[in-house]
Amino acid sequence: MSKKNQILGVLGGGQLGRMLIQSAINYNQDIHILDPDPNAPCRDLCQKFVNGSLRDFDTVYQFGQGCDVITIEIESVNTEALEKLQKEGKQVFPQPEIIRLIQDKREQKQFYQKNGIPTADFILTADQEDVLRNKAFLPAVNKLGKDGYDGRGVQILRDESDLDKAFDAPGLLEKLIDFETEIAVTVARNEKGDLIAYPAVECAFHPTANLVEFLFAPASISPEVAEKAENIAKEVITKLGMVGILAVELFVTKTGEVLVNEIAPRPHNSGHHTIEANFTSQFEQHLRSVMNWPLGATDLRTPAAMINLLGEDGYKGEAYVEGMEEAVSEKGVYIHLYGKKITKPFRKMGHVTVLDENVDNLKKRAIAIKNLIKIKA
Amino acid sequence: MSKKNQILGVLGGGQLGRMLIQSAINYNQDIHILDPDPNAPCRDLCQKFVNGSLRDFDTVYQFGQGCDVITIEIESVNTEALEKLQKEGKQVFPQPEIIRLIQDKREQKQFYQKNGIPTADFILTADQEDVLRNKAFLPAVNKLGKDGYDGRGVQILRDESDLDKAFDAPGLLEKLIDFETEIAVTVARNEKGDLIAYPAVECAFHPTANLVEFLFAPASISPEVAEKAENIAKEVITKLGMVGILAVELFVTKTGEVLVNEIAPRPHNSGHHTIEANFTSQFEQHLRSVMNWPLGATDLRTPAAMINLLGEDGYKGEAYVEGMEEAVSEKGVYIHLYGKKITKPFRKMGHVTVLDENVDNLKKRAIAIKNLIKIKA
Repeated sequence: MSKKNQILGVLGGGQLGRMLIQSAINYNQDIHILDPDPNAPCRDLCQKFVNGSLRDFDTVYQFGQGCDVITIEIESVNTEALEKLQKEGKQVFPQPEIIRLIQDKREQKQFYQKNGIPTADFILTADQEDVLRNKAFLPAVNKLGKDGYDGRGVQILRDESDLDKAFDAPGLLEKLIDFETEIAVTVARNEKGDLIAYPAVECAFHPTANLVEFLFAPASISPEVAEKAENIAKEVITKLGMVGILAVELFVTKTGEVLVNEIAPRPHNSGHHTIEANFTSQFEQHLRSVMNWPLGATDLRTPAAMINLLGEDGYKGEAYVEGMEEAVSEKGVYIHLYGKKITKPFRKMGHVTVLDENVDNLKKRAIAIKNLIKIKA
Repeated sequence: MSKKNQILGVLGGGQLGRMLIQSAINYNQDIHILDPDPNAPCRDLCQKFVNGSLRDFDTVYQFGQGCDVITIEIESVNTEALEKLQKEGKQVFPQPEIIRLIQDKREQKQFYQKNGIPTADFILTADQEDVLRNKAFLPAVNKLGKDGYDGRGVQILRDESDLDKAFDAPGLLEKLIDFETEIAVTVARNEKGDLIAYPAVECAFHPTANLVEFLFAPASISPEVAEKAENIAKEVITKLGMVGILAVELFVTKTGEVLVNEIAPRPHNSGHHTIEANFTSQFEQHLRSVMNWPLGATDLRTPAAMINLLGEDGYKGEAYVEGMEEAVSEKGVYIHLYGKKITKPFRKMGHVTVLDENVDNLKKRAIAIKNLIKIKA
């Protein structure tokens, strides 16, 4: 909120950038977008759209030179270019070294270990053979070190019969946690060091696509577990020294232990409900944190469910939303479509948030909406 | 919500169009904008921006040909072009004849009279001399028939000493109402005929600028008055046969009478709080009504105050928002800036919505915010 009109550059112009823009409009915050897709969801909604690679040094460096503050909506970006921009005086949040750490799940796990942050036991594996040598560690989650995204690069190896699909690249084996619940806590921190957490939410994953299918806020956990989770999330962002918004996904075990699963240093699928359900949306909070504005209140206004709208299996082509009219006739149903013209199986095409003071009702309504809306071609 | 991607054309690209776009993004609703200002607030946020006159037949007609549905965010548009577009099969909402009726306050008043809609007594005046001849009607509000906007074209003539400023053009004299409260009810209607009203809000006007300064939701009126106001607003839109959203400003007299003051066939300043305070914002409702989608629930989620951010008197030039950082540190304070680079005295530069369960607190906080935020140059 300086007198000078600062430009915020965003690496990535997908749905996260799009929802960030919806918030930025309220602040007259000009946004420049870089995205490899010439038809990216943000294309028509920003002050400048640049079509180009997020992983190419020159493209990212050149794009950043026209901005004052630079942030991301996806982790797989060229961090060398961001480091150079930072050295030359640009504000880059999250900081390049943190993006690099998070790009590699092996580094991420070692960071937790080094900093005493509770997480599932793991061993690093160099290749498929290395996984085979460690078969005593099964059942385990086998993760690729780099380039996993939206459920890709993560698989469960239950027993020896699964070993032939082990990743043949640097990765890790993580003890399979017999969890009670999967939850997520979003935290935000600005340059002044102000720090705030959102109430924990509960995530239910799609059985095969490894993507969040439903999300409920608040999570059905005890106040003790909620506090533990919040403290862990705050510890992670503080130990990272990160500026921006950080989504922390956690396991709650049957004995009440809370373990960090994964983190994302940007607005995240587990925070979409905050647009309608919380005092400050995660997108506005992201903006506030990277621009070093005061952080906003995170309280839940109304219990909420969030349903991801994934492209229906078996359909590919120009997207059509079935059942939308019926869905939006209901009180407290909010649809968010991401401006993607083409659907394909399990592609994230949008989401729906449902508000209801009655938490039992909420779960029933979320399932009904899920069955009602289909993204077809 | 048809399979075909329809284009919504909006005549006017100011703050109302801008907030409409924020809602339209959620529905993948493509928007084309026509505005005479090359730097209009919507410029960078739509699928197509056309710089041109809203009052020129050819410009409006040509713009409309590229759209499927056409709506307005300001009344002073070329209705002949809209009529031709309508005849040629375009959907135009509000309908051109209704826009024409509302463009002329003399027509508006006669419409109320003809349809038995309660409104202040009035007489039509042809020019200044005609006003002088009717000085027995004072104290009265003298309104210009056409081209008034944002408080211009409306003045109070208390006694004979005011007569020299009477409008010398077709207009009217309206009995000055000794009202208790000024309220507004927004109603929406789609082509299917679905009809819904928002709870009444209370408006407090700026003493000299004749613009809404504060707005409170809910209005502090009895349930009987609230019901009466809602029924009147529904009657107006039904008698007009209008499709779209209609803001109805009303006087509540000291004896509990409810009289229509003015109407606006589009999203209106008296509905800005609905973005955060109601289940469905007036902008989304406008979209739903003109696109013939189901209407959304209008219930108030949280009591709200709305403060207009007007350009501070005495400042003209590149706008700077003083006090914003302090304001947005507070829980439940939402700033909306309209993307206007240049401020001038009383120009609508933005608004702030404050949410608070405690209505007394709300009023105090609204006044504090009003004193805190200043738009200077």
